[in-house]
Amino acid sequence: MTTWEQLAKQTTVVDDNSDVIVPRDEVHAFCMRCLQKVGAVTEHAEAMAELIVAADYRGHYSHGLNRLGFYIEDLRSGQVISKPEVHPTIVKETVATALVDGNNLMGPVVGTFAMDLAIRKAKHAGIGWVSVKGSNHFGIAGWYSMRAVEQELIGMAFTNTSPCLVPTRARQKALGTNPISVAAPAKDGDSFVLDMATTVAAIGKVEMKHTLQQPLPAGWSLDSDGRPTEDIDKAMASLALYPLGGTEETSGYKGYGLAMMVEVFCTILSGATVSPFTQGWSDKMRSREANRGHCFVALDPQVFAPGFTDRLSELLNHCRNLPPAEGESQVLVPGDPERQHMKHCDAIGGIPYKQNQIKLVNNLAEKNGVEALGRLSR
Amino acid sequence: MTTWEQLAKQTTVVDDNSDVIVPRDEVHAFCMRCLQKVGAVTEHAEAMAELIVAADYRGHYSHGLNRLGFYIEDLRSGQVISKPEVHPTIVKETVATALVDGNNLMGPVVGTFAMDLAIRKAKHAGIGWVSVKGSNHFGIAGWYSMRAVEQELIGMAFTNTSPCLVPTRARQKALGTNPISVAAPAKDGDSFVLDMATTVAAIGKVEMKHTLQQPLPAGWSLDSDGRPTEDIDKAMASLALYPLGGTEETSGYKGYGLAMMVEVFCTILSGATVSPFTQGWSDKMRSREANRGHCFVALDPQVFAPGFTDRLSELLNHCRNLPPAEGESQVLVPGDPERQHMKHCDAIGGIPYKQNQIKLVNNLAEKNGVEALGRLSR
Repeated sequence: MTTWEQLAKQTTVVDDNSDVIVPRDEVHAFCMRCLQKVGAVTEHAEAMAELIVAADYRGHYSHGLNRLGFYIEDLRSGQVISKPEVHPTIVKETVATALVDGNNLMGPVVGTFAMDLAIRKAKHAGIGWVSVKGSNHFGIAGWYSMRAVEQELIGMAFTNTSPCLVPTRARQKALGTNPISVAAPAKDGDSFVLDMATTVAAIGKVEMKHTLQQPLPAGWSLDSDGRPTEDIDKAMASLALYPLGGTEETSGYKGYGLAMMVEVFCTILSGATVSPFTQGWSDKMRSREANRGHCFVALDPQVFAPGFTDRLSELLNHCRNLPPAEGESQVLVPGDPERQHMKHCDAIGGIPYKQNQIKLVNNLAEKNGVEALGRLSR
Repeated sequence: MTTWEQLAKQTTVVDDNSDVIVPRDEVHAFCMRCLQKVGAVTEHAEAMAELIVAADYRGHYSHGLNRLGFYIEDLRSGQVISKPEVHPTIVKETVATALVDGNNLMGPVVGTFAMDLAIRKAKHAGIGWVSVKGSNHFGIAGWYSMRAVEQELIGMAFTNTSPCLVPTRARQKALGTNPISVAAPAKDGDSFVLDMATTVAAIGKVEMKHTLQQPLPAGWSLDSDGRPTEDIDKAMASLALYPLGGTEETSGYKGYGLAMMVEVFCTILSGATVSPFTQGWSDKMRSREANRGHCFVALDPQVFAPGFTDRLSELLNHCRNLPPAEGESQVLVPGDPERQHMKHCDAIGGIPYKQNQIKLVNNLAEKNGVEALGRLSR
């Protein structure tokens, strides 16, 4: 069965790079049938499918369909729970804070619960700060921070991950890519959306280079002995990344420090497993619950000075209108690359995927006895 | 009058690099007489002097005596206020948040007030988030976050600064070095203390290279046309810095995004002047109040999972005990370089300064008719 070839016949093919364009609804439906096939209850599968589609639609391909295989394996093996009677629980709370136990449900189920709790607290007390234990991989951090923006609040989301960041001076990995997302509403639907790993690159970006057989940029990865490498195979073997900033000379210790800050917010506060002591995301190491930690913050600009969205729009537009350096294109603000990608998707009628990506997920579909991507709805 | 030469005769001179060692008390007394000479009330001068000594003691020379001349000029010119009847005011508050107006007092006076307010709120509601307008340069951000750690809380401090960060792809500066400090208490007096500019280097570090006539590292600065430069004179002329991460290829847009996040917390929330629209710190541009913005957060680990300090100590020690990469010395955690510097100062009986630094501040003392550093107490 070579489903991706059938698919390629059925969908629009862009000439220049042979992208396969898949409507968002079809990506969503495909995720739903994969997740439900391995036991996810509808509500939980919906949370995950929505997040996967959003990641690819925003151009964060590393965190969309690229991750589906892991999520399926998590459910299939019973490492992650999806039962209608199991919900995240509030362990402890104040008017403005909460500690949440995810009870080993899927990350997006836990994350959505905790972010919405932070939002409710922010509406009441001006701010809500929620730390979470007992969770799993939660996808793109921006998914959660943007939920707050929909409510005209500032949103923040953080998570620890399995170790892949090599601390400055060290020979081996210790912390995760430990992403930070902060989003804030500007005027007329505009917004600031920062969503970044505290490593130079996210691990998924290295995987994407491997999947797409593209060269690995200098300054992203180290080999298994802690030496810089541009060899994609060595980088895939080590999965060892430089912290943001790179080497010590260019302040890599700052990215390392930010990753440790995320660790404080997500695991040290909550009692989730600290990154160096977590399991990797490969089959042989999956022998217990991940007990991943997250942190979600919502903050109401209305309890501060009036005119928040006006000031933010002015700053965003000031930066966008800066003269570009010689040979550079337009200056962007955090969130603009994603906006450009979504606009492009809307114009071409779906999310463009490389054929390799489609092939990978359809191999997965076949293995799990699920109809391939795009076949059902055509 | 060549005071620094007299001083050099009076103090211990370390052979290898001709450092002048000045006891902390003498630095403090010197700052007090300089600040009081130009009109600072005692309480305000104390706040500033304490901060300057702490910066140099911790090894952040860029933010200690190196900044005294600016602070003196701020007071002398009347750009910054120090009057016994003027205090920072709370404009608006909830149980967990506040908007503070610094009323154009010195940064450390405003910052200490606002951080202590955040601490009180954290003790009551679990978290305190305070945004500040109407302030001035506040020195090292870590000074404020560490106040929370003394109370067994997590502390955070942020500030905007005058523009020196060149956004990714842009030809010119727009945001400040916009530092982030996050500090958290571990066991037995140990702690995590992150204190970093969101540029590759702080502007003060470029100034220190200039003062000490040391070469400028690659990847720190851009010239006035937005091109990379390693020429210290061009760097001093432009005062234009790369965001953390460097170029676009090595994710410099993340440092730019973090600087914008700090702007959201400090100025967009509070109504302080946004960095691109602030004045530079040079005489000819000083024609109105700085209206600088800060943000302070305190968070009580006790409202989350028990065992916070144990877990943090375990993580810090895990990182310190990682095997170093080939040719590297011991792996550190944020706060360790400062601890090492303070230990060194304690061992040699004071803060070691380069003779150039002493010469600069004593020129300043002479200009203002103040007794030179170290002369009075010997």
